[in-house]
Amino acid sequence: MIYLDHNATTPPAPAVVQAMVHTMRGTWANPSSQHGPGQDAKRALGAARSTVANRLGCKPVEVIFTSGATESNQMAVRGLLAAAAPTRQRVLFSSVEHSAHLRLARALAAIGVQVDYLPVLPNGKLDLVAAAGLMGPDVALVSLMAANNETGVLMPTQEVAHLAHAAGALFHMDATQWIGKLAFDFASCGADAVSLSAHKFHGPKGVGALLLRQGTAFVPQTPGSQERARRGGTENLPAIAGMAAALELLGNVADEAQRLSALRDALETGLQQALPQTHVWCQNVDRLPGTSYLRFGQLSVDVVLQRLERLSVAASSGAACSSTGTDPSHVLAAMGVAEMDALAAVRLSLGSTTTVTDVNTVLKQLPPLLAPVLVQELTTI
Amino acid sequence: MIYLDHNATTPPAPAVVQAMVHTMRGTWANPSSQHGPGQDAKRALGAARSTVANRLGCKPVEVIFTSGATESNQMAVRGLLAAAAPTRQRVLFSSVEHSAHLRLARALAAIGVQVDYLPVLPNGKLDLVAAAGLMGPDVALVSLMAANNETGVLMPTQEVAHLAHAAGALFHMDATQWIGKLAFDFASCGADAVSLSAHKFHGPKGVGALLLRQGTAFVPQTPGSQERARRGGTENLPAIAGMAAALELLGNVADEAQRLSALRDALETGLQQALPQTHVWCQNVDRLPGTSYLRFGQLSVDVVLQRLERLSVAASSGAACSSTGTDPSHVLAAMGVAEMDALAAVRLSLGSTTTVTDVNTVLKQLPPLLAPVLVQELTTI
Repeated sequence: MIYLDHNATTPPAPAVVQAMVHTMRGTWANPSSQHGPGQDAKRALGAARSTVANRLGCKPVEVIFTSGATESNQMAVRGLLAAAAPTRQRVLFSSVEHSAHLRLARALAAIGVQVDYLPVLPNGKLDLVAAAGLMGPDVALVSLMAANNETGVLMPTQEVAHLAHAAGALFHMDATQWIGKLAFDFASCGADAVSLSAHKFHGPKGVGALLLRQGTAFVPQTPGSQERARRGGTENLPAIAGMAAALELLGNVADEAQRLSALRDALETGLQQALPQTHVWCQNVDRLPGTSYLRFGQLSVDVVLQRLERLSVAASSGAACSSTGTDPSHVLAAMGVAEMDALAAVRLSLGSTTTVTDVNTVLKQLPPLLAPVLVQELTTI
Repeated sequence: MIYLDHNATTPPAPAVVQAMVHTMRGTWANPSSQHGPGQDAKRALGAARSTVANRLGCKPVEVIFTSGATESNQMAVRGLLAAAAPTRQRVLFSSVEHSAHLRLARALAAIGVQVDYLPVLPNGKLDLVAAAGLMGPDVALVSLMAANNETGVLMPTQEVAHLAHAAGALFHMDATQWIGKLAFDFASCGADAVSLSAHKFHGPKGVGALLLRQGTAFVPQTPGSQERARRGGTENLPAIAGMAAALELLGNVADEAQRLSALRDALETGLQQALPQTHVWCQNVDRLPGTSYLRFGQLSVDVVLQRLERLSVAASSGAACSSTGTDPSHVLAAMGVAEMDALAAVRLSLGSTTTVTDVNTVLKQLPPLLAPVLVQELTTI
């Protein structure tokens, strides 16, 4: 199989599985227990926390382990909003956040929270002028992803952090798609809170973190004594150790980013040469190295995915989490893409398992399968 | 090591670790992805859900996978309360719920929810008369644990379910300590929602479930499309498969319960014979088979645990989650136990790893270590 869906999830690295098994066999006690095995587990938890903090450029105390990015995102927004002044109760989300995060936005709006959306430009980039216009002294926080999961477009997080802070608001960044693909440093990233999920960088599923800048007012959302009473529940030490192992495995992120960008660019230009109807969204915009979002004319994504499946290529119509629906992508809609074009969207996301051979195989085998249906499509129209 | 802290956590069974590794290696794709590997993961998720449902006596659609009991408990209370009529916004918790759950109760009270507490009797049993008196047409739900994590006392859940339903309220049961130790059947348990956590029955950490009776009005608390939009976040399939494996491993729960009760009783009576100052709380009340909560005179728990540590016996001063504190147990306080007695509380919780030899070793080695300090204590007084 050629796996081109790394933005949906990644295979856990062998060293990650090994770290989890090691922990499950040797350090399975409850880290809150006072006896020897419990204290061993507590030390292992502390060591994993230090590793995570070290790799992400934050203090150990700034790491709150969670069950993944969805929980982290929700915890950040609800926890920071609850701690904000009564005169600051407006929240800004970008209009291209992950679908689960936009569900949260709608849920907050439904209970009376004032929610506004930062628009994007037709090229997928955030509209910074509009963002500046939406800031105000009543804004509690701005929630913006570091990079979009569908288009891969990098967001101007430093600029938005600056705008938010200038207005006295906080800035939460969903770095789920960024971490593992590009260099990250919490200390200098400009955000007050950052969400991440381990399974996006070859770590285990069911574990992530919210990095919360020390001193930031925050109302815990999950009751319990763990994580300094900021997130209750017996710590998932095996998965936390697995996440630490995954972060340790990330070698030179910049080198890998360069390799993936080159592969992605070769894939895109190769497809465009073979099939001139190929349109790549956000092609000339700063993007995640391995992400390609494209369409072949207005060829239905189902047809394309079926042909890819025939070639044993795993790809996606967009975010996995909304790929069961038949609605067009909300990200493309926010960019003003016509529905017929959006319904043809295919996401190819490359990752560390992707090789030159994979790309060459797709370039050799996909166009001959799509060319006839593309001709047929033109004829039909 | 003799591990007598099974109520805090249990070692994952080898077959559980194996199921997780198998899933992490072979079925790591995102179950929401439409491609082949994603659909394989979706089928594996469905199979695990069927196993869990089958073993717990519920329908697959009634299983909502979560990150553990703390999340399940909170999701149940917040989700059912949010769906209740505006005229029904009072919530009843027992006064001996898990400390994290009581934190939730206080958090709700802090935002204006009317919260009342069901008291317990001096013997640790729920005060059903008082419970009946607290019911009313304004109650949204009653949240009660199936068995107490400290004393092991079994709660009259069927009776409370009946009281709640007669008042038009819902009944949530935290079965975290029950499941795996005693027979359980969701269909007949009387509760509308039941929380559980896999690591209490040799499953993985970081995974649990909320069983929610079909047709029950519920407002999702974690946004996202997964779990029929009732709990968002990429499914933690390896841990879910591990939980299913742990449930499949539970053989004849009744036989094991009988074995553990006999061991626990031998331990208690043996200690009482050797050290007449031994007081066992709730000794003549229906309890979880392996749980013993006791004190040696008013000997400080720290002294007892230190002696147990010397014998390589892992025990606890009560709930692991509050064992770092120096406050007396809120459970014993609710039973009216004097503070000096409560500060001497030691919890021994037996489980499937416990053998006759373990019990005999403790009975042989602990009394000689405690007798001198007990004499000293009496002399000091």
